[in-house]
Amino acid sequence: MAEILLKDGERINQLFSTDVKIIQNREVFSYSVDSVLLSRFPNLPKRGLIVDLCAGNGAVGLFASTRTKAQIIAVEIQERLADMAERSIELNGLTHQMQVIQDDLKYLTHYIDGSKVDMILCNPPYFKVDEHSNLNASRHYLLARHEIATNLEEICQISQRVLKSNGRLAIVHRPERFLDIVDTMTAHNLAPKRIQFVYPKANRKANMLLIEAIKDSSRDGLKILPPLFIHNQDGSYTPEIHEIYYGK
Amino acid sequence: MAEILLKDGERINQLFSTDVKIIQNREVFSYSVDSVLLSRFPNLPKRGLIVDLCAGNGAVGLFASTRTKAQIIAVEIQERLADMAERSIELNGLTHQMQVIQDDLKYLTHYIDGSKVDMILCNPPYFKVDEHSNLNASRHYLLARHEIATNLEEICQISQRVLKSNGRLAIVHRPERFLDIVDTMTAHNLAPKRIQFVYPKANRKANMLLIEAIKDSSRDGLKILPPLFIHNQDGSYTPEIHEIYYGK
Repeated sequence: MAEILLKDGERINQLFSTDVKIIQNREVFSYSVDSVLLSRFPNLPKRGLIVDLCAGNGAVGLFASTRTKAQIIAVEIQERLADMAERSIELNGLTHQMQVIQDDLKYLTHYIDGSKVDMILCNPPYFKVDEHSNLNASRHYLLARHEIATNLEEICQISQRVLKSNGRLAIVHRPERFLDIVDTMTAHNLAPKRIQFVYPKANRKANMLLIEAIKDSSRDGLKILPPLFIHNQDGSYTPEIHEIYYGK
Repeated sequence: MAEILLKDGERINQLFSTDVKIIQNREVFSYSVDSVLLSRFPNLPKRGLIVDLCAGNGAVGLFASTRTKAQIIAVEIQERLADMAERSIELNGLTHQMQVIQDDLKYLTHYIDGSKVDMILCNPPYFKVDEHSNLNASRHYLLARHEIATNLEEICQISQRVLKSNGRLAIVHRPERFLDIVDTMTAHNLAPKRIQFVYPKANRKANMLLIEAIKDSSRDGLKILPPLFIHNQDGSYTPEIHEIYYGK
């Protein structure tokens, strides 16, 4: 394996349940449980083409690579994060399977023909831009967290254009945005089919949701999957999450 | 307490966690866990006016009566069920608090002025009428289970008319109809605010949902409440459900 240059402030993290190593930099971006759960939520197509939108440092696609032979394209607008993703792909010897497009996702059709993608994964910015947005935060985190460079509308629009008929879009998001997500998907003929809510603990409100939609499908047959709890009451990981992080 | 006449095939069931007694008849209608959960899901207004739509034998309103001083009106189209509800109200000595309107819910404004109701509870027919509907079933069950005499559209329409501004509509329904419910509420300016999914067991898909909407409210601030499980893995009731049925 080639030697990979780490830049200032960067370190390599490993997801122990897989062999995947990821270049991180706390100052600009670190993946979190959201990315791990998203990569495991859908039944990934065995081959074909997967696109990871809002890819950040590439974590979702890197995790997904261990569970599919499909080609994976990571789309990230921020140069510094796209560069980290590139080097993580090299570090894991995945250059034959995974590529990075550093551009605004709305220009994705400059790189990929319409109706060619089997599955889109997306861990988008969660928050609307409003008076509560802390615009003093690091620009890297700001773009990753707030709907500044993109939003649900653009994500669903481009998904409708590049997905095959019956191709799937899987998103991780916040429950507060649930109605927006369902409406925007529906407006772009992406039919929600599987939803899983994630709870920090039992007896707490959900703080995350995973949702999968199928392009041009009927609206029937929505399934609400079993709930997922992150922590036990004592704060330790539940068996499900422990396995996801550390393996069986 | 007056003596109540039981008719052919009727029996009296008691919800042991309360003193409420309910006249049932398996041939025409029995309440189920759906009604019990609906009556406990919202924070009931302490006083004012509560309306129970699609009231059946009155179970939801009867259960609710133990937790509020509000007046409760049960609306039921089927004469035989409305009659059972009337007699259960007498049986429980609740004639000062609870009344029955036997009519189609779309005529509710013949009995109640618009914008007067604090809360609507509704355990509606769950199923669309389609080629799978078993139209040979008992007519009583047919009307209770299938959208023949009413549907989500009519329920949301009348709710918007009779609820006060910021009045609330709480519905128990099936997850397969979730998108329809949210769309229909939204179309009538009823903003979903609290949702709870109910699962037969851990590791199973949800088979019920409870949803509360506020009239004329903003769409922000949706909360997904902790999940509710009916059974333990061994088939016994979970502590939450045991308490609801039998008390602490």
